[in-house]
Amino acid sequence: MDKTERMTASNCLYRGRILNLRVDEVALPSGVQAKREIVEHRDASAVLAVDAYGLLLFVSQYRYAAGKELLEIPAGLVEDGENPADTAVRELQEECGYKPGKLEKIASFYCSPGFSTEKLHVYFASELVKSKLPEDEDELIETLRLSPAEAEEKITNGEIADAKTIAAIYWYRRQQFDNGI
Amino acid sequence: MDKTERMTASNCLYRGRILNLRVDEVALPSGVQAKREIVEHRDASAVLAVDAYGLLLFVSQYRYAAGKELLEIPAGLVEDGENPADTAVRELQEECGYKPGKLEKIASFYCSPGFSTEKLHVYFASELVKSKLPEDEDELIETLRLSPAEAEEKITNGEIADAKTIAAIYWYRRQQFDNGI
Repeated sequence: MDKTERMTASNCLYRGRILNLRVDEVALPSGVQAKREIVEHRDASAVLAVDAYGLLLFVSQYRYAAGKELLEIPAGLVEDGENPADTAVRELQEECGYKPGKLEKIASFYCSPGFSTEKLHVYFASELVKSKLPEDEDELIETLRLSPAEAEEKITNGEIADAKTIAAIYWYRRQQFDNGI
Repeated sequence: MDKTERMTASNCLYRGRILNLRVDEVALPSGVQAKREIVEHRDASAVLAVDAYGLLLFVSQYRYAAGKELLEIPAGLVEDGENPADTAVRELQEECGYKPGKLEKIASFYCSPGFSTEKLHVYFASELVKSKLPEDEDELIETLRLSPAEAEEKITNGEIADAKTIAAIYWYRRQQFDNGI
């Protein structure tokens, strides 16, 4: 079944710092016209890091869109010309002060495919060594470590409420069980 | 550490069908002013459903923001006055033609907390019985079933590339291992 929607008109309404807004007219395969509201957003990388004690690294920061602090794995926007894996390593250095000896891809995914072009690349970092890069100026971040079981408990009680972080934690728990831990 | 960002000015730039765009001026705890580009988006519900054979239900639909078809768990916007659990049940009936005998909450999370207010509520549905509701007119959807192992393989090879779907699959795999399956 062909489901492709073809653009017949595109109207950029806003060009901003981290996102653009576009409203497109599209033709459905049936010929019917529809409107699509699209947020253009740069891709991002995130990294689930485990330390020598088996603890997972998290950052707590105020998220204005959520109106509160969220507990998340380190993440940030992929810069022009940057490889997403390098973004993951850079963000871990900036936000937590570690560089991974080993980096493994977990998955890439769209965060909100109903309206946003943002694709997120998630990595798993281990064999950490201390290596600090300066943080972005307007980022106020606290770091903390949780055991995998504590992290999972915080998903259940709502303290962890971020899509990429939840996907990464359950990925890790699933690997642990596979490895008989 | 107080990280709260306080709004000092708010400017709505667009009011649309599924989203609004707002650019706010905020004061950081240090007193420094910053700009926040915020997409206001209605909350949504999604549902991971397992049938009597242990297969998981997916829908394939064209996602214009991604420029391709994506394989996702059934999902949709929470309507005015609707309970998110009822949204999950309604979407499963509309998109797959089943009603769950049992519905369990997996998690609630922000999809893109860097700019979007959208919160997604994810449920697990089992003990399915046939019960079809008509689909939205402009939704072209194909349904399919995958074993949990097939679903996981499609994350690894990139065929499943949607945040909520990946979080739900790894949640399910982790439960399976916990239950010794």
